[in-house]
Formats: sequence, C-alpha cells, structure tokens
Amino acid sequence: MSFDLKKKATLKKLDYYLENQEVDPPAIPIIKYINMHPDLFTTSSCSGRVLVLIDRGKKIDSEKYLTFHRKIFLEDLKDLPEDSILRVEPFIFHIEARNIDVASEFLQRARLVGIKRGGMTKVKIGYFIEIMGNVCFSAPVKNLIIDESLIKHINMLMNRNEKMLNRFYNSIRIWIENLVKNANKSLK
Amino acid sequence: MSFDLKKKATLKKLDYYLENQEVDPPAIPIIKYINMHPDLFTTSSCSGRVLVLIDRGKKIDSEKYLTFHRKIFLEDLKDLPEDSILRVEPFIFHIEARNIDVASEFLQRARLVGIKRGGMTKVKIGYFIEIMGNVCFSAPVKNLIIDESLIKHINMLMNRNEKMLNRFYNSIRIWIENLVKNANKSLK
Repeated sequence: MSFDLKKKATLKKLDYYLENQEVDPPAIPIIKYINMHPDLFTTSSCSGRVLVLIDRGKKIDSEKYLTFHRKIFLEDLKDLPEDSILRVEPFIFHIEARNIDVASEFLQRARLVGIKRGGMTKVKIGYFIEIMGNVCFSAPVKNLIIDESLIKHINMLMNRNEKMLNRFYNSIRIWIENLVKNANKSLK
Repeated sequence: MSFDLKKKATLKKLDYYLENQEVDPPAIPIIKYINMHPDLFTTSSCSGRVLVLIDRGKKIDSEKYLTFHRKIFLEDLKDLPEDSILRVEPFIFHIEARNIDVASEFLQRARLVGIKRGGMTKVKIGYFIEIMGNVCFSAPVKNLIIDESLIKHINMLMNRNEKMLNRFYNSIRIWIENLVKNANKSLK
C-alpha cells in the first residue's frame, strides 16, 4: 500500500470518529492542520486527560472508569472505586510521515516549543512519529486524600499541558499555512 | 566531530562517572553491552527510581530530595517535606547511533521485548535514541496516605520496571555477543 492510500484510508476512519464525536475537541484543530500537510497524517491523538482507571496490570485488561478532557472539580471524583488509579495523562499524538526529512522537521518543530518526549521509528511505509507532553500524576485512589488541594494540583498539570499544546498548535498552524500559501503561489 | 571521536569523548566521561559510582548499578551491564557495539554509544541512563522531588514547575528549578534505585521500605519515606512530590520514574536510556539502520534495529529490539515508549531523532552526527519504560506514579506528598499498601504499590511498579529491563538486557546481550563472535570469526 502506498503512503497516499494509507493516508486516505486513515482520514476516512478519522471522519467517522469526528462525526461520532469520539475525538476530544482540543485535539481537533491540531489534527486538521497536520492532515493538511501532503506528507503527514495523524493516526491517533489525545489532548491530555484526567483518568480513573481500574488497573489490572496489563493495559488490555485495564478498564477506564472515568475520563475528563478538561479541568476537574471535586464533585467529579466522588465515590471512586477502592481499587482504582487516578491519573493525569499528557497529550499524545501519533503521526505518520512520508519520509525522514518531513519527520525530522516535524520533531524539530515540536522540540522548539518544548516538547522533548517523542521520536520516530521507521515503519513499512514511511516513518511513525510519537510526541507527548510531560505532565505526570498517578496514584491509587485508596492512598489519596482527595480534596481541593489535590484538584488544584491536577488542574495545574492540565493547565501546563494545555499551554504546551497551544504553543505546539500555533507552531504547526504557521508552518502549514505557509506551506499552503506557497503551494497556491506556485500554482498561479 | 566524527561519530567515533564523539563516542570516545563520551565514554571517557562515562569512565569518570563509573569510577565515582555515579551510575546506578542496574544500568551498568546494559550500558557496557551497548557501548561494545561499534555503531552505538550511551549518553545517559537510569534504570528506574523512586524519587522525592521539591517541584518548582520547571525541571531546572526542581530539587531532588531523595532517590532510590531499588525497592523501598516504609522507613525510607519518613518525614518528607510537605511541598514534595513522590514519584516512580521508569528506566530511561539515551543512545546515539551512527546511522538510521542501526538506530532502527535497536528500536525494533526494544519494541520486541515490550518497550513501546521511545524513538529516534536525527541529530548533527547520526541519530539520537530515547527508550523508556512505562510505569507511572507521581503525587504530592501532602495528598498521600503513606502506608504499607502504598509501599507495596510502588515496589510492584519497580518490579514491573525491572522485569522489562531484564528482558531488554537479555535481548541486547545476545545481539552484541553474536556481533562480537561474528566479528572475531571474520578476523580469523
């Protein structure tokens, strides 16, 4: 399968997820800009979230109990299961690139806005890129004192995550808008 | 600067750190095997740790209060500062590779033993690789009930981290031993 065919098939699936509101809203503008680049497409994305998880060791056996793609309130965390884990996960984006040059340029732009976690791997067709934020919170609910100070800590992390994501969005937007502008110029 | 000169300079620094016991013991055998590969060298490594951190927002301002590269006991966490963060960090290795083929092979071997977090970026000389484990624990001390059940949770994560690291070590060892064996054969 060619890169273009794979991109077409992946974007078709993305349209389905968008229609069913299965993509978290803060990720959507970033996804749209990345997919406007002829040599890139997104395969999975999350803008960051607060998660309550029933941890059973392996990821496949674990169960999401609650997910918030926003800042939270004390009421959101009422009556959590005793065996659950409360977690903040940073944004994470998976992207495929046609060649190493565009993958490198993408990673460099991420790095310039402070995203240090991430890299590429060579795959069958092109390069797979992962970038992620660096906020970190995770603890068993039974060992947590869930009060306003914890909510404040979690929202501070969500805020830090959002700020980095906004810087990334602006960098991507300017890059792609210039690309599109130059492509239109050369068509004239 | 060439790859070989950079490797030589980096290994000289590593020798200094080893002499001063500044490298955590579980990482040493892995570092040694990686550095035996003519097209790879390590630039920084950690085998995973339990950390008490005074978090001041930016990494550079934050302060390590306690570090354990081993399983912990309840007594280890006595009288922690009110404004500190208790954290488990997974193993993390930074490696430079001479070319994309050896970087890809390295990442593929990591992936085969279950290490999904990581990737490469193109740098001035060769490729920079980061791989890391996936255990995760981090919470403000003032919101934690530090008791035997928390110690058990933390040690379970350290154990999970160690198991993945051992699988990685065995894979690297077999790879490099075969390389060295074949190199010796072709010299005969």
